[in-house]
Amino acid sequence: MSSRLPTNEFAARLDAIRGSLADTTADAALWFDATNIEYLSGFNHVQTERPVALVVTDGRVELVVPRLEFERASEMDRIDRVRSYFDYPHGDPMGTIVETLRELDVRCVAADMDGAPGTMGYYGPPLSASVDVVEQSWADRMRWEKTDAELVCIRESVRWANLGHQYLVEYTTVGAHPITVSQRASMDASRAMLDTLGERYAVRTRGVGPVHAGYISGAQTARPHGFTPNERLSAGDVIITGATANVDGYHSELERTMFLGDPTDDDEYYFDIMLEAQDIAIDALGPDVPVDYVDYAVWDYFEEQGVTDLARHHVGHNIGLGAHEPPYIDRGWADHCADPLTDHTESDADVAPGQVYTIEPGLYTETAGYRHSDTVLVTESGTETLTYFPRDIESNTIRI
Amino acid sequence: MSSRLPTNEFAARLDAIRGSLADTTADAALWFDATNIEYLSGFNHVQTERPVALVVTDGRVELVVPRLEFERASEMDRIDRVRSYFDYPHGDPMGTIVETLRELDVRCVAADMDGAPGTMGYYGPPLSASVDVVEQSWADRMRWEKTDAELVCIRESVRWANLGHQYLVEYTTVGAHPITVSQRASMDASRAMLDTLGERYAVRTRGVGPVHAGYISGAQTARPHGFTPNERLSAGDVIITGATANVDGYHSELERTMFLGDPTDDDEYYFDIMLEAQDIAIDALGPDVPVDYVDYAVWDYFEEQGVTDLARHHVGHNIGLGAHEPPYIDRGWADHCADPLTDHTESDADVAPGQVYTIEPGLYTETAGYRHSDTVLVTESGTETLTYFPRDIESNTIRI
Repeated sequence: MSSRLPTNEFAARLDAIRGSLADTTADAALWFDATNIEYLSGFNHVQTERPVALVVTDGRVELVVPRLEFERASEMDRIDRVRSYFDYPHGDPMGTIVETLRELDVRCVAADMDGAPGTMGYYGPPLSASVDVVEQSWADRMRWEKTDAELVCIRESVRWANLGHQYLVEYTTVGAHPITVSQRASMDASRAMLDTLGERYAVRTRGVGPVHAGYISGAQTARPHGFTPNERLSAGDVIITGATANVDGYHSELERTMFLGDPTDDDEYYFDIMLEAQDIAIDALGPDVPVDYVDYAVWDYFEEQGVTDLARHHVGHNIGLGAHEPPYIDRGWADHCADPLTDHTESDADVAPGQVYTIEPGLYTETAGYRHSDTVLVTESGTETLTYFPRDIESNTIRI
Repeated sequence: MSSRLPTNEFAARLDAIRGSLADTTADAALWFDATNIEYLSGFNHVQTERPVALVVTDGRVELVVPRLEFERASEMDRIDRVRSYFDYPHGDPMGTIVETLRELDVRCVAADMDGAPGTMGYYGPPLSASVDVVEQSWADRMRWEKTDAELVCIRESVRWANLGHQYLVEYTTVGAHPITVSQRASMDASRAMLDTLGERYAVRTRGVGPVHAGYISGAQTARPHGFTPNERLSAGDVIITGATANVDGYHSELERTMFLGDPTDDDEYYFDIMLEAQDIAIDALGPDVPVDYVDYAVWDYFEEQGVTDLARHHVGHNIGLGAHEPPYIDRGWADHCADPLTDHTESDADVAPGQVYTIEPGLYTETAGYRHSDTVLVTESGTETLTYFPRDIESNTIRI
């Protein structure tokens, strides 16, 4: 059990990229997206107005960074050369990237986008103004199926998220402040994770995390993306929790609908339908099943129960380095894959082993929301639910 | 004193947009960017794979959201109509946006980008496939100068960030864990802010904040974007703090270089140069001064001191709804504004009243970093430093 991705993962990823590159007329592949740069090189950074670009050729891996990231990037053995520009806009990031391509004799580059993203006010010329560009989404697609090493990180994330969740429940009382409970649970679970992992902890965050556990409560639960209100918890509150932990960049997702005091009849009614919908989705999921079949299975059940007007979103998404990743469990997924714009194959419409889904069908009345979320791995023969906090109503009722 | 932006701010912003629109051949303006949508409508959301679009015509304000945001968006009086698609990709977000434009008889739209951003795996057609598009950055530019009402929020942010920073100092001891100190200071300052503001607090966060105070320590300070290590604090550690608070979406920035125990001679040497550089930058800043002059002033001083090789970044940036916003205090700013691609005017190269800058020149040796950051408002006659935590070395030395 490790909490750090092994180095040979990156070699395999770069090999795969070079395989894709060989099938094109491009001389190099290039990424501007921070998550894909991390996926391929291990260099992680927060995307800002200062562009970063990773260039991969048959023989080389080169990185262009702002001066302030130079030392950190230079520590990575697998990057053959790091070049930096002083800052944006003074240092001419795009000029530095183009010069890097010229020195590598790149005439055509397969890029994830035609220029750096306009984050935080960045504005610069397209890459295609200087070099021939074909677009590719190779790393995005590779990230769909997780390797065993990635799954080790996600399983480790599940464990610490569960502890954070346990603390949330323990600290929840009538009159407590929901933000304070969330922050205290995150603090205590983070500390337990850091003290347990010690040097095996991959340093990743700045003054927050690595565990985050929090909740929304009361009327805010009626909104799938509600906020935490500035109101003490009251008897009868519905609570929707969320817990995760950052393990070398990888995430999991655990959410529970809880009741502070006895649930009402309405609470029980909607909770039961939600729980059954989650069971239906987990049962429907498996290798070679069309992704949209899972969303249809839940929708059919909601229709049967007459609650489609209380649904607000599809059943779930994938998770990994990103908090939300494709494939999305959505009735439109097959059509999406068939659209030539998306550059997907027919088999991309089906669930595959190694994919890690959140399963989170929800119902939302005018006064409260009902949604669990579990992280479910697709195996060669079926599925394995990685999150293990109990899902039944009894375990999710906090006695007062 | 309020901690919530008054409603009439939005009317003024929309009026300005309609003024810009009248100077074009476009029938409507459109935004995909989450921060600009919030700036113009007050509807705030986290950008995900589910696109949101705001459409403003001479007479109407319309919003397209995923189904899960419909109720929250519908609460906003100033939005004449909210239309939703069920989810992505099933609900066809771009089709819903195009239909909205058609119903408004829009033939040409002035948009912030040609299609929704590719966040979290979103992939869709360009807007220009369905309607004539001209690009505009009106809201981006308007956000440079803050109004009095925006400054009230930023000043309120400064106050709570300062409390979080005070707690950081108070909780810092040899042997303490830097992540636990950061989380405890954030928790306690958040709670003080929530209890003080009560109903005047604009609900904005989910299980975290509204105050964030944290630090990086030891060798990590040698990296401008270092991480918080999994190591207890030791006597002699250099610490670089960061504190902010979210007040109805607005931010401030407070950073201090601190010493746990007596600073070494080297520490004092670099701290003094850094402090002088910050004074030079604040003195140089003022209305009608070229932005790049401020960066040159610090660079000249660094050259005089022979420390340019220890600089890693420019002097600062603006702050507001975004954590980093233009203008950037960078020697390339005038050239950037002169580039026709950026659509800036000559006067955009100069500092203007209402702009809010972070002033944060830094020096980084092989073992430690030295950087304060203060939030400085430009007034009609000069500047006002909004952050007020003491900057001198004595106040930033924690006795052990």
